Amino acid sequence: MNKVAIIGTGQTKFSKDENDVEKLLFDSSINCINSIPELNKNKIDGVLVSTNSNSKYMGAILSETLEIQPKISHTIENLCSSGTNAITSAYSYITSGLADTILVSGADSSNNPGQVLKWDKTRGSYDLPIFWATMLTKMHKREFDTTEEELAIVSAKNHKHAIENPNAYSNTAKTISEIMNSKQITDDLRLLDCSRSCSGSASIILTSENTAKKITDEPIWIKGIGQKTTSASFTKNIFNSNSSTKLASKMAYDMADILPEKIDVAEIHDAFTVCELMAVADLGMTTNNDSANFIRNLFNTENRRINPRGGLIGSGHPLGATGISQTIEITQQLQGEAGKRQIPNLRNGLIHNMSAAGTSSTVLVLSN
Amino acid sequence: MNKVAIIGTGQTKFSKDENDVEKLLFDSSINCINSIPELNKNKIDGVLVSTNSNSKYMGAILSETLEIQPKISHTIENLCSSGTNAITSAYSYITSGLADTILVSGADSSNNPGQVLKWDKTRGSYDLPIFWATMLTKMHKREFDTTEEELAIVSAKNHKHAIENPNAYSNTAKTISEIMNSKQITDDLRLLDCSRSCSGSASIILTSENTAKKITDEPIWIKGIGQKTTSASFTKNIFNSNSSTKLASKMAYDMADILPEKIDVAEIHDAFTVCELMAVADLGMTTNNDSANFIRNLFNTENRRINPRGGLIGSGHPLGATGISQTIEITQQLQGEAGKRQIPNLRNGLIHNMSAAGTSSTVLVLSN
Repeated sequence: MNKVAIIGTGQTKFSKDENDVEKLLFDSSINCINSIPELNKNKIDGVLVSTNSNSKYMGAILSETLEIQPKISHTIENLCSSGTNAITSAYSYITSGLADTILVSGADSSNNPGQVLKWDKTRGSYDLPIFWATMLTKMHKREFDTTEEELAIVSAKNHKHAIENPNAYSNTAKTISEIMNSKQITDDLRLLDCSRSCSGSASIILTSENTAKKITDEPIWIKGIGQKTTSASFTKNIFNSNSSTKLASKMAYDMADILPEKIDVAEIHDAFTVCELMAVADLGMTTNNDSANFIRNLFNTENRRINPRGGLIGSGHPLGATGISQTIEITQQLQGEAGKRQIPNLRNGLIHNMSAAGTSSTVLVLSN
Repeated sequence: MNKVAIIGTGQTKFSKDENDVEKLLFDSSINCINSIPELNKNKIDGVLVSTNSNSKYMGAILSETLEIQPKISHTIENLCSSGTNAITSAYSYITSGLADTILVSGADSSNNPGQVLKWDKTRGSYDLPIFWATMLTKMHKREFDTTEEELAIVSAKNHKHAIENPNAYSNTAKTISEIMNSKQITDDLRLLDCSRSCSGSASIILTSENTAKKITDEPIWIKGIGQKTTSASFTKNIFNSNSSTKLASKMAYDMADILPEKIDVAEIHDAFTVCELMAVADLGMTTNNDSANFIRNLFNTENRRINPRGGLIGSGHPLGATGISQTIEITQQLQGEAGKRQIPNLRNGLIHNMSAAGTSSTVLVLSN
């Protein structure tokens, strides 16, 4: 079986300034290709686009604008986790031998159509993600005595981390008090509990072991992949734990032959503050009862271990780009190239990306 | 490397009666699952949806309606060749070991948004596929002295074949004279030169060699895969030959270690009559100068070798379903289960599926 490495990364600023998805894809892809001058771009024989945009044939369009002619090229959509689904697909094309070097490029605009959960008739008119998030928050408060301050700490930590991320949507610190007094949107959620819709793009190049070793001394390896879809509609979901994340992380840990305590750094899908508290437990890093303390400790000790780029809350959430941007952060951390965000002495990192109230999850484990 | 087999197939009627893509996907998937009672549906650990629909999260929605909880699940879009792109992706997931048994389900409605080529500004207001088809036809007439009667024979043959295909959109024969006198749409194309937009769904189950051998005595093997994207826009395309088809077929023949003359049966992407004449040459089955005679001979001798189910012209063209429906026809032919369409003594079959004026192509080679 071919091993698969990440050898190049590129992003755009996450903002509300640019809504042209073709341009976003092109910009991050050029940044990505330019990050590895050792790679002849004609060696790229796969181009996968991750997006919720309604535009069609984006793989071919991106390929033509980049002046490359790949074998494999198509769009992948799976809502908020489109990005890690595309990376997993690229991994499979490379290990199967159908392609050697694949550009995975994700983008969405701030008005992308993946943000409204129209398919789920059980939601009635509650078709925005904040409605499931408020139900999860209510449950978490009831089951684990979670306080509003504990939720606010997640947001304060991730906004703080984002200050050192030049591509982040947010670049200002938020105090716990500011967060707890921000605009109330539902019973249980305020504006600063939420990741923000924005435009942005992130691209990554994956390649076979053979090619990676010719091009770079510091490839980052994809060691574990786990994916699970438990349902699509909210009423089939389990409220007090995210079984798709639990199952996906078990697969990823098993494939990487690693235990959760060996994960040095993780990007976690904090679409809303409660999601980070749930995920650190579901990923086996702590327990549900201790998750708020776990995050409080990181915040108090200025430890960037969870969501060093600022997570979705600090970085913004352009759906199709998110999973790729998370993967870029873990790649750069493991390469020791994360600038002011750098955590010292890392071996293993994790990406957790999910869709639609955690009805599906992807977990990746990377190592240097 | 795992070998990959096709073990189950299911379709809906291609028609204009049903435009609900979720229902179409469900109906063909259930038919597919029911085609292999030996398979416990809980063993399906991948669900890939091929569609041009703007609906999101269709893999999870289909999985929930089928009451299965796959690992891998997402949507794949690449215009008219979404179906064979999804089959190729499933092949890669299985050979990589990330999944063992994958349902690939494709559907589109007759009003699907993949039919207008909005992205290509070089087309001006000529954004319907018939405009590129008329340019290709003009070129074919000029370069190879192709006559209107020769184009009409393609349509007459494929309409005739479709009569024995219970899922086809068309079920009536058309005489050469009827075709040549059908409504003129452009300088060079009449209504009966065109494949027709319609609704429909096709599903297929792929699995590893290990699982296939437990379930069936007659698996059909995917032996060759070729894919190539040369451009996205029409002005970058080459008019007198389809280089993406040539390149994709060379890859597929090489991978299958087979020569074109060993292909006993083929489903070819006859979006318009000229496409079939171009494809039989680009696939190495004949030459451009002889392609019209090649097709005329098949028609006169009632030989079903090319487009036995009626191709796109006879069967209809619900974009996301087409490549899967083509693959089902070749599978059933190789299994000896094609009913009144059966060609005797087959070993190897080919599928040719392309997008957007042949700016990208996929070629699959199957064997029994």
